[in-house]
Amino acid sequence: MKITPVKGTNDYLPAQAELREELKRRIGETYVSCGFQRISTPILEDIENLDKSEGGDNLNLIFKVMKRGDKLKKAIEAGDPDRIADLGLRYDLTLPLSRYYANNRASLPQPFKVIQMDKVYRAERPQKGRLREFMQCDIDILGSDSPSCEIELMHTTAKALLNIGIDNFKIKVNDRRILKEILLCAGFAEEDLDSVCITFDKLSKIGASGVEEELKGKGFGEEVIAAFMKMIDNAPFTLDYVRTLCKNTEYIDTLAMIIDTANELAEGRYSAEYDMTLVRGQGYYTGTVFEIESLEFGSSIAGGGRYDNLIGKFVKEQIPAVGFSIGFERIFSILSERKDILKDKPGKIVLFYEEKEIADAIRKAESMRETYAVSLFVRPKKLGKFLNKLEEQGYDGFMVLGKDDEVRFFSE
Amino acid sequence: MKITPVKGTNDYLPAQAELREELKRRIGETYVSCGFQRISTPILEDIENLDKSEGGDNLNLIFKVMKRGDKLKKAIEAGDPDRIADLGLRYDLTLPLSRYYANNRASLPQPFKVIQMDKVYRAERPQKGRLREFMQCDIDILGSDSPSCEIELMHTTAKALLNIGIDNFKIKVNDRRILKEILLCAGFAEEDLDSVCITFDKLSKIGASGVEEELKGKGFGEEVIAAFMKMIDNAPFTLDYVRTLCKNTEYIDTLAMIIDTANELAEGRYSAEYDMTLVRGQGYYTGTVFEIESLEFGSSIAGGGRYDNLIGKFVKEQIPAVGFSIGFERIFSILSERKDILKDKPGKIVLFYEEKEIADAIRKAESMRETYAVSLFVRPKKLGKFLNKLEEQGYDGFMVLGKDDEVRFFSE
Repeated sequence: MKITPVKGTNDYLPAQAELREELKRRIGETYVSCGFQRISTPILEDIENLDKSEGGDNLNLIFKVMKRGDKLKKAIEAGDPDRIADLGLRYDLTLPLSRYYANNRASLPQPFKVIQMDKVYRAERPQKGRLREFMQCDIDILGSDSPSCEIELMHTTAKALLNIGIDNFKIKVNDRRILKEILLCAGFAEEDLDSVCITFDKLSKIGASGVEEELKGKGFGEEVIAAFMKMIDNAPFTLDYVRTLCKNTEYIDTLAMIIDTANELAEGRYSAEYDMTLVRGQGYYTGTVFEIESLEFGSSIAGGGRYDNLIGKFVKEQIPAVGFSIGFERIFSILSERKDILKDKPGKIVLFYEEKEIADAIRKAESMRETYAVSLFVRPKKLGKFLNKLEEQGYDGFMVLGKDDEVRFFSE
Repeated sequence: MKITPVKGTNDYLPAQAELREELKRRIGETYVSCGFQRISTPILEDIENLDKSEGGDNLNLIFKVMKRGDKLKKAIEAGDPDRIADLGLRYDLTLPLSRYYANNRASLPQPFKVIQMDKVYRAERPQKGRLREFMQCDIDILGSDSPSCEIELMHTTAKALLNIGIDNFKIKVNDRRILKEILLCAGFAEEDLDSVCITFDKLSKIGASGVEEELKGKGFGEEVIAAFMKMIDNAPFTLDYVRTLCKNTEYIDTLAMIIDTANELAEGRYSAEYDMTLVRGQGYYTGTVFEIESLEFGSSIAGGGRYDNLIGKFVKEQIPAVGFSIGFERIFSILSERKDILKDKPGKIVLFYEEKEIADAIRKAESMRETYAVSLFVRPKKLGKFLNKLEEQGYDGFMVLGKDDEVRFFSE
């Protein structure tokens, strides 16, 4: 038998599991308090739903679940690998949400403000150090195209981060429609916009000259590339500057309002900023995109955007939707050494007893369980050594039944 | 695209998800307060670990996950269905716990009192109406053979049930070693005991004559069957009676102590009773077995037992272990109509606003979020109809921004 967990998945020790639980609790508490509602969807989805979804690269990372019984036999005899699986593990929470909404729409409020905090699976190559099983914490608003939704999602996600002790971050915001308008005005053709966006997304990594190089490599005309480079070369990437580049400024006005309102509500605790280069990978985003960057840890800790066309794949009409997802695993790795997050939890103590006193020990423990989490241990022969281990494992103190009147805290 | 969830799995609506969350919270709170510690293990396990485990019938119900890339190609070319999968979804939480303990033993307290509340998967035939994805809530004590463990598990599990409003239940207890001692004394051979146990387990369903019939069918000698039938025919199935049948009474004495102590601690809120016919299905149980029967709903709502040999399959020595599992899905279906469980949660209200007032609306909502979960909705044209829907969906009241000074509760 193999004793290590499957590559790319983790066993969590008690202290880690406790921290993860507390982070989930606080994030969920914020979401609920802001009027979002929990739902739960299965980890297994129909393989066709997954395969036909707009998951981009994630479609290559689906864990596929084999058919069973006669159906499996037939599929193997047919020798077609694509017919061996009938189910798969979801690679995100957005596809299941779209299916869920289509399935349960009549029973849901309109618009629907929804929380999903659950596990997703991606068959990443383990050597990359990426997790294959990980938590996502998503809030979404379905059925409204109002920019109030974006403001609420930014406010609520920021509040959840503050509630787990993460401050010093900024929310970067863009609207893909603005970027496309800029590209159109530069002279790119409608059908080339997605390809140009993908290159432009790399600006901060490869610089303006790198972008120019890559666009040339993709075979775009010299003239349109030159016009575009003139727009972005040493440009102040502000909404006011971008306004001078565009004919249609509707989306710019809306985005300016979203960013101003978010900053007003932030009251200085964080900031919201326009980021002209923000694109985000998922194919399904249609408008606003967000990303939260931790300034302390220099990494992206949340992201999302508007996806007005995805749910329409399941229902026969367009249902506007926008979501924001906290990168739980990133947060967990950032906070994994921060014991102060658990300081308000009830103390954990051990009550030692002699084997035959078990009934008295349980009664004594019960009398203290309003105040502490009380774990019962038969008194070991070498108490001192045992106590050292308990302290290492995060216990706060102990009592010996019939001997101590009060808890003896390790910190005293 | 298919809009229904995969057969045997469920989409949970907001009210259902809220109840499930609250049940999990209360069960977890009880476990933690009683000194058990949470851990978390992956849903994916190595397929060999699953296939070689002592899962009995569950081994036929494993969802197998296909290999990927070149390894998949090779396996399909080889035409061997047993080589196509390298991973599987766990069918219970006990096998992953055993692997986890072997993997992390040096970092864990001894004995280790552990909580697992997570999803497991079984490819049941959907027409049976059984779930293929379901929650289990387990507590286990690893590394101690003391009967105090059994007492603690019974006490803690009963307390968790009381904490979610389930009373009127009894804990049935047996020890497989007592049953085997009875069978040995009746004259059955050591190697036949498991087979006889499986038949005897059906006593309450098929009656004494049914048991006799089946034992005859299995080809046991007439004399030994007659001796056994004399023991069980119209017998008072008490420990005192059973004591008269056995030579070795060690396990009887211990079980009597466990049951007496559990009843003493129950203080009349529930009862613990010896049940000579209780066997429980899993192949890995070695001693005590428990089951909790709801007298109100007439069904089994929790079960467990001692499995002293399972962890030894992962580590090179015998590690005694005992666990008790609450049947979460059974509990959820019993309680799904009981709205009083959520009555202590903060009220859910809606704040209506005009689109352009979003910043003021969020500020007003924030000022009330210490008291209520406040959801923001743009004021709809037909407010009355909308309010009816909100009330149906479990909201408690509403306010219109700039118009109402106080919450207008639906109940008033």
